Amino acid sequence: MAATTEVEKKNLEEEAEQVVNPWEVSSKGKIDYDKLIDRFGCQKLDDALISRLERLTSRTPHVFLRRHVFFAHRDFAEILDAYERGDKFYLYTGRGPSSESLHLGHLIPFMFTKYLQDVFKVPLVIQLTDDEKFFWKNLTVEECRRLARENAKDIIACGFDISKTFIFSDFNYVGGSFYKNMCEVASRVTYNQAVGIFGFAGEDHIGKVSFPPVQAVPSFPSSFPHLFSGKENLRCLIPCAIDQDPYFRMTRDVAPRMGFNKPALIESLFFPALQGETGKMSASDPNSAIYVTDSAKDIKNKVNKHAFSGGQDSVEKHRQLGANLEVDIPIKYLTFFLEDDAELEHIKKEYGEGRMLTGEVKQRLIQVLTEIVERHRRARASVTEEMVDAFMAVRPLPHMFD
Amino acid sequence: MAATTEVEKKNLEEEAEQVVNPWEVSSKGKIDYDKLIDRFGCQKLDDALISRLERLTSRTPHVFLRRHVFFAHRDFAEILDAYERGDKFYLYTGRGPSSESLHLGHLIPFMFTKYLQDVFKVPLVIQLTDDEKFFWKNLTVEECRRLARENAKDIIACGFDISKTFIFSDFNYVGGSFYKNMCEVASRVTYNQAVGIFGFAGEDHIGKVSFPPVQAVPSFPSSFPHLFSGKENLRCLIPCAIDQDPYFRMTRDVAPRMGFNKPALIESLFFPALQGETGKMSASDPNSAIYVTDSAKDIKNKVNKHAFSGGQDSVEKHRQLGANLEVDIPIKYLTFFLEDDAELEHIKKEYGEGRMLTGEVKQRLIQVLTEIVERHRRARASVTEEMVDAFMAVRPLPHMFD
Repeated sequence: MAATTEVEKKNLEEEAEQVVNPWEVSSKGKIDYDKLIDRFGCQKLDDALISRLERLTSRTPHVFLRRHVFFAHRDFAEILDAYERGDKFYLYTGRGPSSESLHLGHLIPFMFTKYLQDVFKVPLVIQLTDDEKFFWKNLTVEECRRLARENAKDIIACGFDISKTFIFSDFNYVGGSFYKNMCEVASRVTYNQAVGIFGFAGEDHIGKVSFPPVQAVPSFPSSFPHLFSGKENLRCLIPCAIDQDPYFRMTRDVAPRMGFNKPALIESLFFPALQGETGKMSASDPNSAIYVTDSAKDIKNKVNKHAFSGGQDSVEKHRQLGANLEVDIPIKYLTFFLEDDAELEHIKKEYGEGRMLTGEVKQRLIQVLTEIVERHRRARASVTEEMVDAFMAVRPLPHMFD
Repeated sequence: MAATTEVEKKNLEEEAEQVVNPWEVSSKGKIDYDKLIDRFGCQKLDDALISRLERLTSRTPHVFLRRHVFFAHRDFAEILDAYERGDKFYLYTGRGPSSESLHLGHLIPFMFTKYLQDVFKVPLVIQLTDDEKFFWKNLTVEECRRLARENAKDIIACGFDISKTFIFSDFNYVGGSFYKNMCEVASRVTYNQAVGIFGFAGEDHIGKVSFPPVQAVPSFPSSFPHLFSGKENLRCLIPCAIDQDPYFRMTRDVAPRMGFNKPALIESLFFPALQGETGKMSASDPNSAIYVTDSAKDIKNKVNKHAFSGGQDSVEKHRQLGANLEVDIPIKYLTFFLEDDAELEHIKKEYGEGRMLTGEVKQRLIQVLTEIVERHRRARASVTEEMVDAFMAVRPLPHMFD
């Protein structure tokens, strides 16, 4: 056994400080994303790459790029190379359907994926991992399937192009070429490797051990013969939150041994809880997040009561010292969702220097969030069962690259 | 941790003496089947149960029952109870397709299952575990699928009733209700339990860990909605060799927790190698077995050259002492395949008392085996690709209980 290197030691120490995997995100203080990049071995998404994307697509980069919400990547430059050469690729993202109503954090990858689909004009597969939620949550198969379908409506409401988008649930779609690829992946990952990547224990059930290949194989075009038959070299780009990185480290490791390209990734920060930035939001505390089902009144109350403020205790002190923007949740949320760069800069300056009060910033945030939630609610209300069936039909997409 | 009991100690000692699991059968001496029954916790299939079967079916019990080739069971009496009450059940058996041509040992469960289907007039599902062979053997997915189809022809040649029989390969059929049941099973078996049952190691790939639920779920009617929709209480009887018992110990453990009946089992001895009875035959030594593709000349050569004889070294000594029938392979093989009870008893007496010579017994065995192999060859030659498609079509079987 090799001696523990300095880097490994640092990684182990850091792992004790912050845990980030698909089922747990926790940290003693703020998540240190730079350390995460080091530990996972992905790359920082730098301004040069964002500028290149802007040049290639002739579109202002999405607010999530301008504000570094999507902050890390793997092989995104290779995707841009391919695009520049005129080669095609496809997008893959997903959701584990464990609750009826989504919060704003859940929408982030879908809002961003819609932007990528719009600017690149590429097909998209969206996996609903109802089997994963059955394995990890105390839910029945039927409940997981129902939630997958309900969540599909929220996803469709984000505005995806039906001529380029295939949404599938694992309980409906696993089988055939998809199952063959699952077996190909599974045969290339040892139990010890899976424990190293995912931290499984002997008391965990074997369903958990079986699952990672299910999330891996949408990265391979041959898992979708109705879409990509004869296009086995098509590259795949995965927009996701960085807690999903372990799945795709595993996938990228096996991909060349299966004769496929490694999937590229573009990875986001976690959307912070209203109470402050130490991890993901908690489904068990409805006051920790804004849900897409919240009313205008709910949003107003939650922001006013629960959004952690970096402002000072008294108006006097605030006018003198200004707000601590580093910990201020209204500012974080506006960074995610206020489109206007100039206005955001103005608010940050005024608030940071004490001329603007927390109440005023919260007021603006309430407007922004209410607008997003209202827009989503209207869009979702217009999603019919027939539309869900249409998005989820196993069908060719003849216009997927148009 | 509880102290090791005397029984556990005995089991551990015995486990070191003989290894019997789905992938390895080995033993220092002859397999001790009584010890295996004790260790596995199944029951001996006794004469009283065989007599009851005879009464209920009004048919002479199959030669494999009369000669105790099928020697152990789990809940077979409950199946007979159900049958006596007029309740229905279904049969499930299978094969791991790892080679092109089957040997006689491979045919035993299928010959016996055909008898069960004939006397009970019940539906039958036959699983071809091409995924298992992909996981355990150094074969491609495509090669495993091809072998599954070739093996299906040999199985069909055994004479199954197409109106009552559904043959499926895992690579084709996993998905839908079958996958849901796989997940239900997987969520009820811990990795530690799987290691206890199957002996997996940390260096084994996770495909192996994922596989046991695939072999478990054909035991549940809801895995076949096209056959058993609305019949979730239907009992299942599994004829198999005893090395498959670990899969079904696991299955019986989870079945009640899923709301299903435990599958019943009827389990056979291993068919011995020509060289002598220490385990199953070896695919790597073609002279260790009679294949269904062997010519009459092959059979004659193999039996004459390789079948281990319990006869004495010289004719003189043989006339005086007689043959040791306990170790004599021609007698073992005749016990499996010579239908006529009186003739078998006659041969055993004459040979055991030295009046019949090894050469004469082998002569009779060659006749019997040649006839079986010729009959199989003719039957297999008449199996068309269309028949394979028909048996493997996912379809209702409206006459399955007629």
